Amino acid sequence: MGLHKTYLDKLSRFFQIRNLLLRQALAECLGTLILVMFGCGAVAQLVLSGGSHGMFLTVNFAFGFAATLGILVCGQVSGGHLNPAVTFALCLLGRERWRKFPTYFLFQTIGGFFGAAIIFGMYYDALWDHPGAFDVTGPNATAGIFATYPGKHLTLVNAFFDQIIGTAALIVCILAIVDPYNNPIPQGLEAFTVGFVVLVIGLSMGFNSGYAVNPARDLGPRLFTAIAGWGTDVFTARKCWFLVPIFAPFLGTIIGVMIYQVMVGFHVEGEVRDRKEGITEHENVRLTNVTSNDNPKEENKEKS
Amino acid sequence: MGLHKTYLDKLSRFFQIRNLLLRQALAECLGTLILVMFGCGAVAQLVLSGGSHGMFLTVNFAFGFAATLGILVCGQVSGGHLNPAVTFALCLLGRERWRKFPTYFLFQTIGGFFGAAIIFGMYYDALWDHPGAFDVTGPNATAGIFATYPGKHLTLVNAFFDQIIGTAALIVCILAIVDPYNNPIPQGLEAFTVGFVVLVIGLSMGFNSGYAVNPARDLGPRLFTAIAGWGTDVFTARKCWFLVPIFAPFLGTIIGVMIYQVMVGFHVEGEVRDRKEGITEHENVRLTNVTSNDNPKEENKEKS
Amino acid sequence: MGLHKTYLDKLSRFFQIRNLLLRQALAECLGTLILVMFGCGAVAQLVLSGGSHGMFLTVNFAFGFAATLGILVCGQVSGGHLNPAVTFALCLLGRERWRKFPTYFLFQTIGGFFGAAIIFGMYYDALWDHPGAFDVTGPNATAGIFATYPGKHLTLVNAFFDQIIGTAALIVCILAIVDPYNNPIPQGLEAFTVGFVVLVIGLSMGFNSGYAVNPARDLGPRLFTAIAGWGTDVFTARKCWFLVPIFAPFLGTIIGVMIYQVMVGFHVEGEVRDRKEGITEHENVRLTNVTSNDNPKEENKEKS
Amino acid sequence: MGLHKTYLDKLSRFFQIRNLLLRQALAECLGTLILVMFGCGAVAQLVLSGGSHGMFLTVNFAFGFAATLGILVCGQVSGGHLNPAVTFALCLLGRERWRKFPTYFLFQTIGGFFGAAIIFGMYYDALWDHPGAFDVTGPNATAGIFATYPGKHLTLVNAFFDQIIGTAALIVCILAIVDPYNNPIPQGLEAFTVGFVVLVIGLSMGFNSGYAVNPARDLGPRLFTAIAGWGTDVFTARKCWFLVPIFAPFLGTIIGVMIYQVMVGFHVEGEVRDRKEGITEHENVRLTNVTSNDNPKEENKEKS
Repeated sequence: MGLHKTYLDKLSRFFQIRNLLLRQALAECLGTLILVMFGCGAVAQLVLSGGSHGMFLTVNFAFGFAATLGILVCGQVSGGHLNPAVTFALCLLGRERWRKFPTYFLFQTIGGFFGAAIIFGMYYDALWDHPGAFDVTGPNATAGIFATYPGKHLTLVNAFFDQIIGTAALIVCILAIVDPYNNPIPQGLEAFTVGFVVLVIGLSMGFNSGYAVNPARDLGPRLFTAIAGWGTDVFTARKCWFLVPIFAPFLGTIIGVMIYQVMVGFHVEGEVRDRKEGITEHENVRLTNVTSNDNPKEENKEKS
Repeated sequence: MGLHKTYLDKLSRFFQIRNLLLRQALAECLGTLILVMFGCGAVAQLVLSGGSHGMFLTVNFAFGFAATLGILVCGQVSGGHLNPAVTFALCLLGRERWRKFPTYFLFQTIGGFFGAAIIFGMYYDALWDHPGAFDVTGPNATAGIFATYPGKHLTLVNAFFDQIIGTAALIVCILAIVDPYNNPIPQGLEAFTVGFVVLVIGLSMGFNSGYAVNPARDLGPRLFTAIAGWGTDVFTARKCWFLVPIFAPFLGTIIGVMIYQVMVGFHVEGEVRDRKEGITEHENVRLTNVTSNDNPKEENKEKS
Repeated sequence: MGLHKTYLDKLSRFFQIRNLLLRQALAECLGTLILVMFGCGAVAQLVLSGGSHGMFLTVNFAFGFAATLGILVCGQVSGGHLNPAVTFALCLLGRERWRKFPTYFLFQTIGGFFGAAIIFGMYYDALWDHPGAFDVTGPNATAGIFATYPGKHLTLVNAFFDQIIGTAALIVCILAIVDPYNNPIPQGLEAFTVGFVVLVIGLSMGFNSGYAVNPARDLGPRLFTAIAGWGTDVFTARKCWFLVPIFAPFLGTIIGVMIYQVMVGFHVEGEVRDRKEGITEHENVRLTNVTSNDNPKEENKEKS
Repeated sequence: MGLHKTYLDKLSRFFQIRNLLLRQALAECLGTLILVMFGCGAVAQLVLSGGSHGMFLTVNFAFGFAATLGILVCGQVSGGHLNPAVTFALCLLGRERWRKFPTYFLFQTIGGFFGAAIIFGMYYDALWDHPGAFDVTGPNATAGIFATYPGKHLTLVNAFFDQIIGTAALIVCILAIVDPYNNPIPQGLEAFTVGFVVLVIGLSMGFNSGYAVNPARDLGPRLFTAIAGWGTDVFTARKCWFLVPIFAPFLGTIIGVMIYQVMVGFHVEGEVRDRKEGITEHENVRLTNVTSNDNPKEENKEKS
């Protein structure tokens, strides 16, 4: 046992990486791998079983809780973004350095690539057994297991709008959850709450094109399918659709950040700043009372 | 980066609103927007996909967790009512000022209006692709995506009763959750618990007319549909049904407040008051013991 | 507003009940009412909608989360048993006085009665619209909305065994959750955890006869159906089946208490007693170390 | 009542076991019994009801929450592994003594055996009523209620790979949850989070062969079926498939431990060690800042 301990310690020292950004990138990579592995795994289970072992709801649950688990695995090290759009939002707000953005994007995409690869290996027999193995389009297409493809009813304009809305909704909720001036939930439950956000987006915004709302989650697996046998069709299908889930989410992020900040964020931030700077207008005094009391007896102030 | 920070700070100061009621109204508006966007989005996904991407359970989940997320986004600022009936209940109990009620009602309805508008934009192509696009009644009606309509079996009397019971159940549970004298859950989990309440109401009281139990959630989207192409039928359908989910919830609120207060609320409140006022009857002494010990050894008091 | 406050205070003093047992009984009654209202409501939604607005899973969710909400509403006052079997278990273990048992049983049954009545009123039109309105048996039977009836495959012996196992499983889990010597969850989450227990029992033990595992939840609604129009058939159906969910759960409680105590409970209790009494055997010393350190380095003690 | 208390105390002293390993083994046994009872119960409900009282999603929920409940029941005493693969992982990392491994494995398997026996008794009538009672293979096979069998499309190589991936995913997530150097969740929520892990694995990795990922959960019930009437076919079916869920999980454990440690674990461990040993390289200083501040203003350090 002593030998075991010594050996473990040596291993630990050998593999230890002290560069923070590299450690964070590795953690992001593992987190996104988990997100894509469980999420795409659920799609694979639904498609390959022909509906007997899954339905759209199970895919929603899987992506939601996979996001939770991915964040839990890497959150302490890297913040648990799992999504370049989230990194982008935090950079926009000055909470992360811009130089993190390309590194995170790259490693998140790598994580997505390997997550898809694991599911490909896991369901290799089932894939070959499936009538439309390696079809990108058509009724038995399997490319949709890994990357997203738009529904037949969807025009490219609406598709763009779809990804923008989905990402904006995601970002508004995530900003509320992690806003340092607005702590709505007990510390440690952020990962679960983000999982619920992803679940709800799937429940209500998944019909158009499968709610990628995450460039890395879509691009990584798509690259994998291009290599693994589906070919370049994965990029050219539906008028270069693959560009939409890469670029629209960033536009959605900007809109989401603006909405949250204008409706809620700037005011809670300003309130804290006002208190620091000693601004004591009438309205502000009352406001401070409200936030410092759980059960404000504001009525007492009114003549009655 | 310094430039970025300075710019953000300027933006924050420019947009900051110091009027508390306006800030709260904006927050309520965003919260209700999130509730309606995700909730009606789930109905849209169910209706427009013909059941392939949703079922009634997914709508229940979406409304439940959407309530959670809406409360998380705005709760710290405005209390996270999202529902005029909840505001009404808190006013009845003297925990909010009555002047908040019309402001909240207005902005919650505006939030519902824009939440519906976002879903309309998001599923615009899918809506046109659907056989009954812009039908208010009939087998392919789509108006039910946004506002509620009663089932065929339902008379107006039962419909009224349905909304009263649903809202009363909602209010009883919410009062228990936020009662300052009865703290059953850890701080910070209120939003999740309210989400479960909304979920359960959907699971068990959703068949008659779709469990609006919220005047703003129903009126806001209904106004939007009237403008967006469904026309005035949304108001005249089923003998002016639209009035039921506006007025019945307030009646249900009164009943819910009475039931909770008579069965539980007045007694826990009175217990605290008794202790303050030093009332020390025999029964009351024992009662104090019970609440201050986790593991009361009441048996010791009995001769045995 | 001052008038409003004064009026509320008067109301509160008028309705306040100081007798602890009566307050607890009222709270138990409301909690069980909530359990039965949401639970049976979900069955009604499933049966009356012919499956379009529910499935067996939604009934499981509804009963689970309804238990959570019922406990939240009354837990601070009465302990939130909602089930005579739970009261019985706590009496057996000496944690509640025996005289509470009949009072709780009575008021829990009354709560179940009125919970069923509310659902009856809510779905009155839907019930009349249903082909088998007021049938106790047969393919369109509706009596199963309120009380439980055994499946066709079930003999009375197996039915008895079914209720015993279900209740024993419930009691083992609840004892672990509330054991004062074994605190596995953060305070305040008990209600949620019990909800999960009820959910899981429904998912895995609901096929035989609908997992009553609660005499009050079954008897109260059954009494209501006997009065409301289904007649005495609700008692005589299937060879007086109604006696099974009244008596078997108590037998199951005894077995559940024994299993939990022999496998886990007596030992954690004894450990605490040993420490108090200063018993310091070799084995016990190590054991104390284990429980006081989060990360016991037991390996250090071994020669290596 | 005094008599009752005295009797309870005597019982408690009579049954108390002071040997720690035996107590832990008993607790593990009860925990695994609960996991298998609820999990296999849900499969039984699905299979025997022909889909009317369950679907694959309900099995996923049942196994997930059953894991949660099993861990809650025994976690304080034994750690709540419920799975020899988890015990193996903790032994590999030097957090449990190796001598625990065979004891836990044995008692976990015994727990699985009795969990299956309870479900067999509970659904005895339903089983005899089912067309394929006691079939190991074929369309009406019931052996799959208790132990896992591979899908028709699956080769033995892929099956092995399937169990390795599933277990590796389980172990990566569990290690993140219980890593003493990486505390992503509030204390006391570990059991719930592990439940989510098991749920997600079922949602995304359950199609190939039913996600045993646990030698005891598979071997215990399989032994029971061999005795209870299905015969030795349960071992010989599909080219001795039964060996796969016994051996592959341990290989998966090794891979999972390696992935987590190399990607995240060694670095967070090393960081703590570095701080203890006073290593103060440039990179490390910044790193310490990051972990000690919630809202690091790293940007200040850059020239801008």
